Amino acid sequence: MMDDPNQSAEDRLIANYFTPLAKHSGAYGLQDDAATLTPPPGCDLVLKADAIIGGIHFFRSDAADAVAQKALRVNLSDLAAKGAKPLGFLLSLGLPEDVDEAWLGLFARGLGADSEHFDCPLMGGDTVRSPQAIMVSIAVVGSVPHGAMVRRSGAKVGDRVVVTGTIGDATLGLRLRQDTGAARRWKLDDAARAYLARRYLVPEPRTAIAPALLAHATAAMDVSDGLAGDFTKLCRASGVSADIDVARLPLSAAAAAALVAEPGLIEPILTGGDDYEVLATVSPAQCDAFMAAARAAGVAVSEIGTVTADQAAPRFIRAGQPLEFARRSFSHF
Amino acid sequence: MMDDPNQSAEDRLIANYFTPLAKHSGAYGLQDDAATLTPPPGCDLVLKADAIIGGIHFFRSDAADAVAQKALRVNLSDLAAKGAKPLGFLLSLGLPEDVDEAWLGLFARGLGADSEHFDCPLMGGDTVRSPQAIMVSIAVVGSVPHGAMVRRSGAKVGDRVVVTGTIGDATLGLRLRQDTGAARRWKLDDAARAYLARRYLVPEPRTAIAPALLAHATAAMDVSDGLAGDFTKLCRASGVSADIDVARLPLSAAAAAALVAEPGLIEPILTGGDDYEVLATVSPAQCDAFMAAARAAGVAVSEIGTVTADQAAPRFIRAGQPLEFARRSFSHF
Repeated sequence: MMDDPNQSAEDRLIANYFTPLAKHSGAYGLQDDAATLTPPPGCDLVLKADAIIGGIHFFRSDAADAVAQKALRVNLSDLAAKGAKPLGFLLSLGLPEDVDEAWLGLFARGLGADSEHFDCPLMGGDTVRSPQAIMVSIAVVGSVPHGAMVRRSGAKVGDRVVVTGTIGDATLGLRLRQDTGAARRWKLDDAARAYLARRYLVPEPRTAIAPALLAHATAAMDVSDGLAGDFTKLCRASGVSADIDVARLPLSAAAAAALVAEPGLIEPILTGGDDYEVLATVSPAQCDAFMAAARAAGVAVSEIGTVTADQAAPRFIRAGQPLEFARRSFSHF
Repeated sequence: MMDDPNQSAEDRLIANYFTPLAKHSGAYGLQDDAATLTPPPGCDLVLKADAIIGGIHFFRSDAADAVAQKALRVNLSDLAAKGAKPLGFLLSLGLPEDVDEAWLGLFARGLGADSEHFDCPLMGGDTVRSPQAIMVSIAVVGSVPHGAMVRRSGAKVGDRVVVTGTIGDATLGLRLRQDTGAARRWKLDDAARAYLARRYLVPEPRTAIAPALLAHATAAMDVSDGLAGDFTKLCRASGVSADIDVARLPLSAAAAAALVAEPGLIEPILTGGDDYEVLATVSPAQCDAFMAAARAAGVAVSEIGTVTADQAAPRFIRAGQPLEFARRSFSHF
């Protein structure tokens, strides 16, 4: 293939790095204009696209495999929160001139490993020149039984509020990179620092919890722009409010240690973003079954509060007092 | 909505410019994490993603509505060539800080108009900060009857080679912008210049020809990187070659005039890219029916050659001699 004079450098790049990942028969080895996917009978498709851009969502110095993983995982996180099973994804990759073969090889290896791990095949896409920044845009297609996608709008008064994993790690991991004194102030050892840095770099989509959400949740979303702001959106979509018990928020040992050393970190922990955990509401009657299903799926879930009839934004209560935030969400604009 | 203190600037941007376009019920007004689409029964999905980037695929000074139209249309062109009907699209938009509300408003108007015109609703996506260049990444989903997608690989010896519209306009339109003396050398009047410029700026996806391709074509692809190189790919995928009669290539009056003035332009006309026409092969027995279906759909189609059993690249024959090209395709790399 390398010696075919009719094959452009762009064709060679695709053939060398991305065709080996396109194992689904409907991807046609990336040799056609488009891919085909036969949808499972009786299903709805669940569609999502999210891009990450160098210098904005990741550092140019980040390992290329981690960049690829982050780009795919932020999309898989949305599918998981909606109860959807991944079917496949499309990749649009914008590359500046200084990206070399080593970077591309590592990027493709990371993408291929995650594509296999999450059973979400590369179906197609394109590779284009970008003037300055690396741009990784991914669109995922998933499926749910017809009419069953878990919405943001179904939370009911009295529902329990639950969240997967731990909150705040990624934003603390980012701060550690931006503020070289933070690790010392927060009294973190190397292992804690590495843990938080990794949580920023490579999120963990909660793909395994999708069936439990489908079966038991009244509403769900993924937490990408901070728990406080994202949960406020879920409450608004559902026409409800909630009381969240800050003492019950799931924190990693590393985040908990940092919070002890610097109590003001509760604000970035709740509003900083990049968590990629699933936040859901479950009726009290379904709560035990949901928790059992989550345990069986190997996903840690914590109950952190209760949905209320109030029309105001949800309250995050610590020692009997609601917290006040400067802003509830991360925003690029 | 503008006064909600819990709504970020990013939320407001989406609500103001893109929610009005998201009329499909499964887009949930862009207020959920993902969209749902119920696939037509008995169909395959056809998936494609293509990005355009400012300074690479369009000029920063291009009108924002034209940029939006180009981004959607290059994807619709692929669906058309595969015989697919559009179902919807996802948009990832990367915006540098200097993009203002006027640009965004015009971008959304152009996108909305094309979305309606081509019956391809906005289903979701995201808007992110980009450090320098505007990035517009679109993923489209279409459908074909199960197993019916028109591939590149089905051309048979003896098939007629056909192409829609006219070839070479876009690359000449681009040259006119890059080379201020070209219009005078090519003896083009203002109308011819404007026509070629417009063909570069806003391609015309041949959506209406999809049913005729499904019914009658043995192979098809869209011409995006130059007819010569793209047709070489189709021939290679089909294990055939072809003889193309250069005298029968469909040219616009503007392109024909330029070619008379500068005969060397035959090379960019055949290799320059950005045509977004459909190239197809049709068996001799189906040719009349295909031509009639194309006419009924209002799409001009020209027969330009015949598929042969040769294993070499297809020949473009002028005055009995095959043309030689410096390179057959446009490539970013």
